[in-house]
Amino acid sequence: LNDDRRRYASVIGPGVRADGLTDLACEIGRGLAEAGFTLVTGGEGGAMEAASRGAHEAGGTVVGVLPGTDRSHATSYADITIPTGMGHARNLAVVASGDVVVAVGGEWGTLSEIAFAGVIGRPVVAVAGWHLGHSTALPDGVHYAESAADAVELAVKLAG
Amino acid sequence: LNDDRRRYASVIGPGVRADGLTDLACEIGRGLAEAGFTLVTGGEGGAMEAASRGAHEAGGTVVGVLPGTDRSHATSYADITIPTGMGHARNLAVVASGDVVVAVGGEWGTLSEIAFAGVIGRPVVAVAGWHLGHSTALPDGVHYAESAADAVELAVKLAG
Amino acid sequence: LNDDRRRYASVIGPGVRADGLTDLACEIGRGLAEAGFTLVTGGEGGAMEAASRGAHEAGGTVVGVLPGTDRSHATSYADITIPTGMGHARNLAVVASGDVVVAVGGEWGTLSEIAFAGVIGRPVVAVAGWHLGHSTALPDGVHYAESAADAVELAVKLAG
Amino acid sequence: LNDDRRRYASVIGPGVRADGLTDLACEIGRGLAEAGFTLVTGGEGGAMEAASRGAHEAGGTVVGVLPGTDRSHATSYADITIPTGMGHARNLAVVASGDVVVAVGGEWGTLSEIAFAGVIGRPVVAVAGWHLGHSTALPDGVHYAESAADAVELAVKLAG
Repeated sequence: LNDDRRRYASVIGPGVRADGLTDLACEIGRGLAEAGFTLVTGGEGGAMEAASRGAHEAGGTVVGVLPGTDRSHATSYADITIPTGMGHARNLAVVASGDVVVAVGGEWGTLSEIAFAGVIGRPVVAVAGWHLGHSTALPDGVHYAESAADAVELAVKLAG
Repeated sequence: LNDDRRRYASVIGPGVRADGLTDLACEIGRGLAEAGFTLVTGGEGGAMEAASRGAHEAGGTVVGVLPGTDRSHATSYADITIPTGMGHARNLAVVASGDVVVAVGGEWGTLSEIAFAGVIGRPVVAVAGWHLGHSTALPDGVHYAESAADAVELAVKLAG
Repeated sequence: LNDDRRRYASVIGPGVRADGLTDLACEIGRGLAEAGFTLVTGGEGGAMEAASRGAHEAGGTVVGVLPGTDRSHATSYADITIPTGMGHARNLAVVASGDVVVAVGGEWGTLSEIAFAGVIGRPVVAVAGWHLGHSTALPDGVHYAESAADAVELAVKLAG
Repeated sequence: LNDDRRRYASVIGPGVRADGLTDLACEIGRGLAEAGFTLVTGGEGGAMEAASRGAHEAGGTVVGVLPGTDRSHATSYADITIPTGMGHARNLAVVASGDVVVAVGGEWGTLSEIAFAGVIGRPVVAVAGWHLGHSTALPDGVHYAESAADAVELAVKLAG
């Protein structure tokens, strides 16, 4: 599939296993692949690996954009790995690579990705995890989903 | 003053003027300088410039860490300018340079800095702007202040 | 093809067309694809596009790691595009993504990639363009080739 | 001194002690400070520390732009420290911060800085270390000096 025809979805979330998130992330990865998305993640464990597995099992293409320089650290469910050598700054590349971004739980690293998505204008679907409030007008950009199916449906809609 | 003796506070916030924030940022900058902090900002306009002006007028040292490569774009209240050429990725450097981070209003760029502060373990004081919620346990790190004086007092305490 | 089985070659060079380099880069891209490499480039025009076209026409997989956030700026010969939003700092990601790096001509941007390859221990094959000398012991890492065929053969050998 | 009146010189070189370079870097740092430059380095040991010491002893201002997030790793001769958290990508910030760049010996990391200086148009003075050649027209930008005094004189001239 040439790049012109691809739609990309970035799945962001914690790099360690967290209760309930693994199944959720896997189901979201599968749904996004079935909806025709090429999946991009940060290439590590936890929710990133779970989403990658889901997409891989559904026959999708999976890209891992790693913080370090050693691609052997990537989840084995990635088809393409991009070591960046930039540490946390690679979070910007992860979200810049998605036409839509799906956040599954996550703490500070995931929040930095949600924020960068806002900075560069990528729509975000958040499932579990962060809820954002603001003292004046909350900037647009984050949409909340209650389930994997909801999240995938929203992602399809937002990716246009 | 040699670096060993300095304490640094990073002030983050919008690069454009926003109602009410200019005075607040200026007062916070002044207070932080009076408390002995070297001030670090992203070096641009809006809240960054206002905080820089406040610190400058109180006789403090002000550092601007710029996204581009041209230091002539920096606020004229900076004593030292560090053009990085890294665009939004310089946000990580801004917060890494503070022993404590004070967020004054702001939208997505500011949220990315709050998040990076969380990633690398810098305490954050938020005044106006973002309020963070989480579906499970909210990670520690962000403290809320109601006024410039509160914010400075909290920053002094958190910087240890 | 899953990632474990891939070998990656990064082709670096000028983003604008330069005499003689277009055909050379195209031939190198084709040869690397025929040798089984997944091709990585900076995703832009000039030598990057020419190498991408060569690999594409030989049926290879081509990845473009872009400096900006807009994937529509990528060469149309890329199968996968990774916008990074990091400007020149993405050069590190381009070389970190190759098990071997092939430099085709190029000026300062290409030299920064050769240097980063040295920093992180990726072998470099240089064809046309830079010749490096050092006043004491030249560090290992750069190998010179005289033709596209030489460059491909060296890349195969160096990628182990 | 406000930023408008400062001229900045970045000194780049190896982070470990190397024969002959320590004295050379120290003398260059001293000379640059005496010529009125604010000194910027990567904030680590070796040639960076030696240049910082020279500038410090001459009463100059010294800035260290660090790869990690922990400022306690900086040379104690820095007056201002900027931890970036970006690893090797901080090399771009080091050279972007100089109106002129002086390279003292060095291997791949130093070469990446010379190259970035070329990319963003900063003049470079090289003393010992790299000698660059090119198969077609060598791009302008790197000037060679034979001694610390030569290097400082060239830096003054090139910084305009």
